[in-house]
Order: sequence, then structure tokens, then C-alpha cells
Amino acid sequence: MQIAILLFDRFTALDAVGPYEILCRTPGARTEFVAERVGPVANDLGSLSLVAERTLAEVTRPDIVVVPGGPGQGAQMENEAVLGWLRAVDATTTWTTSVCTGSLLLAAAGLLTGRRATSHWLSLDRLAALGAEPTGERFVFDGKYVTAAGVSSGIDMGLGLLGRIAGDRVAQSVQLLTEYDPRPPYDAGSPEKAPADLVAEFRAGRPPATVTAPSS
Amino acid sequence: MQIAILLFDRFTALDAVGPYEILCRTPGARTEFVAERVGPVANDLGSLSLVAERTLAEVTRPDIVVVPGGPGQGAQMENEAVLGWLRAVDATTTWTTSVCTGSLLLAAAGLLTGRRATSHWLSLDRLAALGAEPTGERFVFDGKYVTAAGVSSGIDMGLGLLGRIAGDRVAQSVQLLTEYDPRPPYDAGSPEKAPADLVAEFRAGRPPATVTAPSS
Repeated sequence: MQIAILLFDRFTALDAVGPYEILCRTPGARTEFVAERVGPVANDLGSLSLVAERTLAEVTRPDIVVVPGGPGQGAQMENEAVLGWLRAVDATTTWTTSVCTGSLLLAAAGLLTGRRATSHWLSLDRLAALGAEPTGERFVFDGKYVTAAGVSSGIDMGLGLLGRIAGDRVAQSVQLLTEYDPRPPYDAGSPEKAPADLVAEFRAGRPPATVTAPSS
Repeated sequence: MQIAILLFDRFTALDAVGPYEILCRTPGARTEFVAERVGPVANDLGSLSLVAERTLAEVTRPDIVVVPGGPGQGAQMENEAVLGWLRAVDATTTWTTSVCTGSLLLAAAGLLTGRRATSHWLSLDRLAALGAEPTGERFVFDGKYVTAAGVSSGIDMGLGLLGRIAGDRVAQSVQLLTEYDPRPPYDAGSPEKAPADLVAEFRAGRPPATVTAPSS
């Protein structure tokens, strides 16, 4: 089984590494980071680079595709090299997945039309405009399409997907290995829970300094 | 403010990227991945590489140090280049931190003697043998030393530390941005919650196939 994780300039690191850390432990799976060109790909803040080991042209029939989001997603929305690759590999994938604004790329490729899906909470309207049916769930299965909410939600999605692929016991093993028993010291992880004025600042495009909201 | 995240061969990716994704958004901070040599550093499964942009010799006075764990930690336990660097930079850090078995490296460097600390649940005995006082907490502050439990716990630690550095509102903003409102689809993230026979297999050194337990 081949798992391909797409990288592009200004992706958000945890969008990719969260599901990676879970899914790379799928029994019998080989996980590969792919991009238009091999070599280091810099994240949204430019202070982290993950190495793409394969070009899109080299990875033609992955069983699972994972598409992260991040501010760089905007520049990919009309990049036919990426959108065409997503359409082509989707024809034979077992699972086509995304985290955060990665779902906007899947939607732009025409893969989520009429499907229940999710994205970063600030991008749900945009997802609807691209033809999907947004939900507020943490992660959503619609057939073989699995989409997750913002950034950290890819860990939850990874565990849910691993359970479907390899069974509950393997998923529980990986949860135990990664000690995923979250205890956030704050309770502001969704627009329903965060202080209302903070949510309003994000919606107005004025998040606090150094906090870059996802672009469209 | 400079944040230095240590990399070494066979580190666990999420140990480093979890706190990175939170702490890189500290107002005014510059985050850098450091290693003995610059260039790609491969993780425990060999399918992910993060790029180290700075050598240990180039980073002499970071304000914050983050030490991840992973199976490769064992090989670093007698690597004086790394242990000596940890001792040297600790002399001037504001915060010295670790995730997972990274705390064993801090302890091996002599930095946790008599201090309350934590590690991956399978490594708490080892941490005690190195002179620290293990706790079962998700993350632990003891003075400027902040240690987190296994793999995913670095996200919680990152938020707790960010709150101390930049205040609750910045931490809440980053939690909202990263949509860190975890909803794991299983409840097996700690030895207290996972099926007892699964915990016993890990303790006996027989985790399920492809699930590699942290080495000492």
C-alpha cells in the first residue's frame, strides 16, 4: 500500500505531519512525500522544510492521498499540475483525504461536488462555494473521501482512517504509542468555544500578530 | 527570541512538529531546526525528513530549546556533541523543554536531577533511573524545565508554554487557528485507558507489527 502526502510551498506543517505520524504506521504501507519537484519544501512560516522524495509524475497510483492545507493552498487553486494530478490519482485511490484547506484543493479539482466535507472553520463558506456540502464535524467520511477540519484535526482523521483500514486494535495501538490522550490547557479550539471577540477578529481578517489565517 | 528544535537521526516527527506548530507563532520568535550537521534529518521510520538549517555550533544562545524523542534517542545518550550542547545552551536558556524520550537526553545531560519531569509512558522508569522524579502528568513545569509525555503531548505543552510566554489570549488564538479541539475516535491514548492486554504487549516489548516502541 502506498500513501502519498502532497507538499507545496507554504503548506502548514502539522496538517501533513499529524496524519503522517498515524498513517505511516499502517501495516504494510509505504508513505511518501510528493511535490512538483523533489527536495525541501518550505512551510507557511518559512522556518520548517519537509523533503519531497518523489515528483508528482513518479507517483501515479497511490492507494491513499493526503492533501494538507495552509496559506499556500491559494496559489495551488489554479495550478493544473497539482489539480490534474489529484484528478488522475483519485481515479484509482482507495481513500482520497485532506486536512484543513486541503479540501479546497480537492474541491477545485472537482472531487467533492455534492459531497459532505469539511475544512478549516474559516473556510467552510469557500468550500460550499466550490460545490461541497460543508459540515462542522471534526472529520467526515463520504464514500472514499475523508476530509478533516483545521490543522490538528488530521491526527483524529488519521486514527479514524487507520481503524477503517487496519481495524480498531491497530488504531488503538498507534493511539497508545503516540500517547494521544489530549489535554489542551485552554478550551478555545473551535469558534463555538473560543472567546467571541477573538473569533470576530479572525473573521474580520485581523488575527493577533504572527497568527496567519488560512488564505483562500 | 530564538527557539531551537534539536534534530537527530530517527527522531519522531510529531514530537518535533507538534510543539513547533504552536511555538513558531510566539510573537517575535524565530524558530530554527538544529542538528550536528545541516541538511535533511530522517525520522524513525525513514519516510520523513526535516531539514536542519543550523549546526549545533552555530546556535549558542537560544532562548528556548525543544528536544524531541524517538527511537534514535538511544544513540544520542552518549553523544557528547549533543549532551555537551544541551548543557552549554541550558546555561542561558529561558526554557529548556522536551517531548517524549527527549527528557532522557536532558536527564543524561544532568539537567533534570531531582526535578519533576515526564516522558513517554514506557520510559518513566528509565527517567527515574537517570535521577529525575517522574510524574504521570501530560506536561510538567519545574522551574524553567518543561517536559511532555509521549509524541502528541508536545502540542499541549506548546500551548501551555506559549501561554506563559505570551499570555492566555495569544495561546487561545493559536489554539483556535490550529483548531485544536481534539476528538480522538478511540480512547486508548494512555496506559490507564487502553485495553489492558494491549498495554501488556507494549510493556513486554511486543507492540503490534509496524508499531515501534521508543528505545532506550
